[in-house]
Amino acid sequence: MDRIERVDVLVASPGRNFVTLKVTTADGLVGWGDATVNGRELAVASYLRDHVAELLLGRDPGRIEDLWQYLYRGVYWRRGPITMAAIGAVDMALWDILGKRTGQPVYQLLGGRVREGLLAYRHAFGWETSELLDAVDRQLADGYRAVRVQTGVPGLRTVYGVSREARYEPAGRAAVPLEEEWDSAAYLASVPAAIGAVREHVGSGVRLLHDAHHRLTPIQAARLGKAVEPYDLFWLEDVTPAEDQEAFRLVREHTTTPLAVGEVFNTVWDAQHLISHRYIDYIRAAVVHAGGISHVRKLFAFADVYGVKAAPHGPSDISPIAFAASVHLCTATHNFGIHEYMGYPQQVHEAFPHAWHVADGYLQPGDEPGLGVSFDESLVEGHPYQPAYLPVARSLDGTLVDW
Amino acid sequence: MDRIERVDVLVASPGRNFVTLKVTTADGLVGWGDATVNGRELAVASYLRDHVAELLLGRDPGRIEDLWQYLYRGVYWRRGPITMAAIGAVDMALWDILGKRTGQPVYQLLGGRVREGLLAYRHAFGWETSELLDAVDRQLADGYRAVRVQTGVPGLRTVYGVSREARYEPAGRAAVPLEEEWDSAAYLASVPAAIGAVREHVGSGVRLLHDAHHRLTPIQAARLGKAVEPYDLFWLEDVTPAEDQEAFRLVREHTTTPLAVGEVFNTVWDAQHLISHRYIDYIRAAVVHAGGISHVRKLFAFADVYGVKAAPHGPSDISPIAFAASVHLCTATHNFGIHEYMGYPQQVHEAFPHAWHVADGYLQPGDEPGLGVSFDESLVEGHPYQPAYLPVARSLDGTLVDW
Amino acid sequence: MDRIERVDVLVASPGRNFVTLKVTTADGLVGWGDATVNGRELAVASYLRDHVAELLLGRDPGRIEDLWQYLYRGVYWRRGPITMAAIGAVDMALWDILGKRTGQPVYQLLGGRVREGLLAYRHAFGWETSELLDAVDRQLADGYRAVRVQTGVPGLRTVYGVSREARYEPAGRAAVPLEEEWDSAAYLASVPAAIGAVREHVGSGVRLLHDAHHRLTPIQAARLGKAVEPYDLFWLEDVTPAEDQEAFRLVREHTTTPLAVGEVFNTVWDAQHLISHRYIDYIRAAVVHAGGISHVRKLFAFADVYGVKAAPHGPSDISPIAFAASVHLCTATHNFGIHEYMGYPQQVHEAFPHAWHVADGYLQPGDEPGLGVSFDESLVEGHPYQPAYLPVARSLDGTLVDW
Amino acid sequence: MDRIERVDVLVASPGRNFVTLKVTTADGLVGWGDATVNGRELAVASYLRDHVAELLLGRDPGRIEDLWQYLYRGVYWRRGPITMAAIGAVDMALWDILGKRTGQPVYQLLGGRVREGLLAYRHAFGWETSELLDAVDRQLADGYRAVRVQTGVPGLRTVYGVSREARYEPAGRAAVPLEEEWDSAAYLASVPAAIGAVREHVGSGVRLLHDAHHRLTPIQAARLGKAVEPYDLFWLEDVTPAEDQEAFRLVREHTTTPLAVGEVFNTVWDAQHLISHRYIDYIRAAVVHAGGISHVRKLFAFADVYGVKAAPHGPSDISPIAFAASVHLCTATHNFGIHEYMGYPQQVHEAFPHAWHVADGYLQPGDEPGLGVSFDESLVEGHPYQPAYLPVARSLDGTLVDW
Repeated sequence: MDRIERVDVLVASPGRNFVTLKVTTADGLVGWGDATVNGRELAVASYLRDHVAELLLGRDPGRIEDLWQYLYRGVYWRRGPITMAAIGAVDMALWDILGKRTGQPVYQLLGGRVREGLLAYRHAFGWETSELLDAVDRQLADGYRAVRVQTGVPGLRTVYGVSREARYEPAGRAAVPLEEEWDSAAYLASVPAAIGAVREHVGSGVRLLHDAHHRLTPIQAARLGKAVEPYDLFWLEDVTPAEDQEAFRLVREHTTTPLAVGEVFNTVWDAQHLISHRYIDYIRAAVVHAGGISHVRKLFAFADVYGVKAAPHGPSDISPIAFAASVHLCTATHNFGIHEYMGYPQQVHEAFPHAWHVADGYLQPGDEPGLGVSFDESLVEGHPYQPAYLPVARSLDGTLVDW
Repeated sequence: MDRIERVDVLVASPGRNFVTLKVTTADGLVGWGDATVNGRELAVASYLRDHVAELLLGRDPGRIEDLWQYLYRGVYWRRGPITMAAIGAVDMALWDILGKRTGQPVYQLLGGRVREGLLAYRHAFGWETSELLDAVDRQLADGYRAVRVQTGVPGLRTVYGVSREARYEPAGRAAVPLEEEWDSAAYLASVPAAIGAVREHVGSGVRLLHDAHHRLTPIQAARLGKAVEPYDLFWLEDVTPAEDQEAFRLVREHTTTPLAVGEVFNTVWDAQHLISHRYIDYIRAAVVHAGGISHVRKLFAFADVYGVKAAPHGPSDISPIAFAASVHLCTATHNFGIHEYMGYPQQVHEAFPHAWHVADGYLQPGDEPGLGVSFDESLVEGHPYQPAYLPVARSLDGTLVDW
Repeated sequence: MDRIERVDVLVASPGRNFVTLKVTTADGLVGWGDATVNGRELAVASYLRDHVAELLLGRDPGRIEDLWQYLYRGVYWRRGPITMAAIGAVDMALWDILGKRTGQPVYQLLGGRVREGLLAYRHAFGWETSELLDAVDRQLADGYRAVRVQTGVPGLRTVYGVSREARYEPAGRAAVPLEEEWDSAAYLASVPAAIGAVREHVGSGVRLLHDAHHRLTPIQAARLGKAVEPYDLFWLEDVTPAEDQEAFRLVREHTTTPLAVGEVFNTVWDAQHLISHRYIDYIRAAVVHAGGISHVRKLFAFADVYGVKAAPHGPSDISPIAFAASVHLCTATHNFGIHEYMGYPQQVHEAFPHAWHVADGYLQPGDEPGLGVSFDESLVEGHPYQPAYLPVARSLDGTLVDW
Repeated sequence: MDRIERVDVLVASPGRNFVTLKVTTADGLVGWGDATVNGRELAVASYLRDHVAELLLGRDPGRIEDLWQYLYRGVYWRRGPITMAAIGAVDMALWDILGKRTGQPVYQLLGGRVREGLLAYRHAFGWETSELLDAVDRQLADGYRAVRVQTGVPGLRTVYGVSREARYEPAGRAAVPLEEEWDSAAYLASVPAAIGAVREHVGSGVRLLHDAHHRLTPIQAARLGKAVEPYDLFWLEDVTPAEDQEAFRLVREHTTTPLAVGEVFNTVWDAQHLISHRYIDYIRAAVVHAGGISHVRKLFAFADVYGVKAAPHGPSDISPIAFAASVHLCTATHNFGIHEYMGYPQQVHEAFPHAWHVADGYLQPGDEPGLGVSFDESLVEGHPYQPAYLPVARSLDGTLVDW
């Protein structure tokens, strides 16, 4: 039996902040995990370094499921993003090690390939509709078949996920979050036409998605869903906060626009009611934030029972390690739907050399043993953590708005 | 308008580890908060120090509700013990400051006293029933009217919450948790008789409680509830894990023994289904772990609509600061039921001088302005954090058992 | 400890009837409460003078919550507008006293400001659509961003809330209510076009509301909701009587037009089913008629769990005292939506000097200690109660129609 | 057409306070109504005198249903004990007038006699069980077949509904309510045995009832219901507060002891959920407090649809006028179950001469035209209202307990 000999928590900022877990065994195998929680990076790093690392030393890295239970059921305090991202990082590192030990890519250990590639969707934005159409065209020209479309809102100065310039980085470099304005009424009054314009522009073959960033009330979401029905959205995402899972019933009763939610979920319990009542069509839980491959695999299996499809979160703050884990898992998951791929700056690709790749609009896991990804540890020196936060939004009267 | 000028996160171990938040305003007012998460102390400390402190500087300390929303809705990652304990610490510190600014004990600001004192329950344990009876007698002799009773389980070497000796400290000083054995069948076969013996010993006037530490399946819990009905328990606590809130329905349908749960809950959403379906009688959320006075007050108001009573968690790992906040809140909460009071070693009482106290089995908030509690900062030097973890349990076949 | 030394019930009619409660303490602090129940003023005055005043004498005014419970649970007969308005008046007077004692505006004691101002909506009416458009324009010119629009109904001589002249007073000076005609079919046939005309006139930026005064059946309400969906109403109010809370399900299933109800509610129980089943989007309970700040705060917290927003009633029969209490409460309530502001004649503003005010379409609580409002007692002499009643409506066949 | 010519509101205290309504028509017919709301007498008197009397003048007294709708739907503020007792008084006076006009007892106008008499239950109490047995024996000796049994609670000084002496008057003569102690645990520990002793004493032929006065939580009520199943209670009454109608589900699921509730209800809406979900067996609404004969008849018809029986409230604070109305209504109501008859002092019988009477344990309406009851107006002079309140109860820690 091999033993875990060393656990390193590496915080570095090659363009943006990432928390990387490195598990090394007595046999010299190395497993990589991602524990990045955007805007709360150092708390997860402390969780792993101060409270988890020591507990792993000497343990059999092959007891992946038992270590998951040990860190979940064996700890008084469960759930929540910090705890579950820490567990997620350990879990994916152990799957990486098992892959390397057996010489198999992880997807092979999860049951093997069930499709030729994972349909990926990209982001396109434009403050004006004309700019959005150009952005969509660029994604289609790159071979993608699915695009998330976001536009500006008349009367607002800024809108999350949309820039007035070509490049966009959601997490600003600052010690304190920016405070943006938000106006749901103005958004609702303008967005259906923008989506309609895109649909008219691209015709019926392209998958179009849209994200509302949890900022609507259920009845507003219902109205939006109805309003965009003629434009055949692939999905409407994060229409309302999801702590109150039953809130989605109202949306569901009023529209046939498919619904997606779940990137902020941390366990199957966050989605149990949503899924078992069939209020959504796509569950967006991320491997890193929902406890790793072991737990998300079960969550996707649960969703499969109800015909809900897996459609993981894939923004630039999920490191290429967690992205690899997600691609491997989805490659072996029958009820997979689509995968977000926001993409990374070149600096990040280089910091995390990876076998996964995109070809013709499809994500491929590659065939290296394990997750097929690593981290250039030399970057820790010279690329220290820098405070960076997503903006905060307030409505026009100053009330804090939900993420 | 006053402004927050300084935020200090103080980690010290006067006998056990505590994470204390100190908020100082430009006017020189000091608010104290407790952010201790047992076994994950340093992660919360990092959360506050690295990601929250900077965000508070310069803000109006009187905007308690807005700062709560800012730290909850304004952050992408919500929920879970680490996040919510950090928010809880900030919230109670701000209420402390408001009390000091106005010269009022916090309970006055919450609507004033609705009872003469808070009925407290103590812990009594004995490996053998005879020892348990002695322990119960000692609590009654001290003037308490409500006792939680726990005994050993034949065939097991150790049982959480029960010691073979007179003193007991649940969180062992160790870098790694102890691993204990557990056998639900042996427990179920022995515990009703022990509880029956206590009831016979004390007669009908004393409130008896029992805690199952989440280790039963729902049907086992239902069976236990029925088995102890003749002994008139005040409550049966934590009978089964509560992520799946609907699981309590099964217990509820089979027994009239009152049920309590919720010390691990972090928001009202963790209890929304449980409470609105009336599956429990007592909600045990702690001010520190469920987001502070502002959120727990709302949770208790929610529970009141359904006739569920507030009965906060009060173990020795909740520092006397959070304990003060809980006593103040319950003093002004009509649907209060009972308050746990595990007690503290003398060293902790001295580290956190406090106005709250016990008299004749009832907790009293005292009448100092604010929360009436402070922390002896000189202890930080010389009492550094020491790793300490609750034990982990495995069933006889080695399967990891739930907390 | 201070003590309540004197309780006065003051009935006066400075332009319209108001019942004002004045609580004076031994320390000389004065708390003001409003107990006006439009058309039943003297019954509440008797309730307070004959059955409540004596019970308050000598009690600690800081025991706000306990006195609430004493007057609610301690009295055999609960609920209903008379009882709850009397309790509401006592409660707001006690919060006023606590604010004055501590030198804080009440909103600070409730958790502090969570927004910069409260979005207010005004009333606009016109018998003909052209008159309505003019009335809307006047409100917009005054800086308001939200307007409730009501028009005449062809074939009817009068319509509640709409006048054929510029000024309108709903409660006529008469010993007996006027009897008006009503015809739901004529109303349903004409009102959507009128609302559509307003929307076309103002464009998409203005919040438009409409009140149906409980006069529709559920299926008529559903039909109206669907008919006005193109005009993007902020809400449709009081579509059907709400004693049978489940009746709103039918409306809800058929339309995404947001729904508001609750100005006639007196406790959280009147809305428990409506809210927990998410049949409405806005709860309109008034501080005075639903038991005061202490109870309405709990009701709003309950609504928040279900994503329902607080949107209090604010007609001219709620005195500026209760209006102050409502503005303070909403300033500190995160799930606030909008506040009605019907406005007062100059005579009423002078009778009740108040710190709250409107600026740029937003309500502001002002920063005086307590509620920042008082009553000119000299008006009692010379402005006696005068009978005044809302009209009664009958359908064309003479059947009495619901309020 | 006859017209209402005069409306008098008579407040007198022949031994206890009663509010009596006298409606006189142009034809010289007189109708009597009872509007007594125990402890809030003057508020209802004001409601009638100041806000209702004037509205009735000149109206056709035969439009009973329309006047009910006029006072309920035509008034903005509905529901609650004050409003509904006022409406109830008017309604029963109009039925009285119709009976006198037609020369028929009211039960004849309601469809005629469906049984030979109304089974009545009496109250029996004893601080000690032995005293209770004697009290029961006295009722049986008087020919009654159904008895409500209440006993003292060890450790408490007083218990509502139970006296240490032979006579008992619940509403003490005092300007302020007495404050009593209450301890549900002590009550639950002692009451089943007392009920068991009565059952053993009387054998199986006698109907035994018990009233818990709303002081239990649902799970306590469930436990009590189970505990007394062997003693074959006719019903267990008012086990828990009923604003939250769904709370009774929990009791219902755990016991087959029949349940009764509703004396505090004011409209059918207060019982709609309770009855339609069949959570109770007997609905106890009183004619006076639930809007009169017209509304309670509908409520009983609604209950009949679900197999729930009518069992009206009949304490000494319901005047013999309302008692007459109740006896007439039940005489013609098929789903009648049982009628409370607490009895009156001789002084009250003389103040309200009445045709209704008891014979062999059954209530009889008598055969005089109308309700067959009147009021000796000469008593108004010389028997003025005297403050009298039911006691208030606090639990041992001082928390206010529900009525």
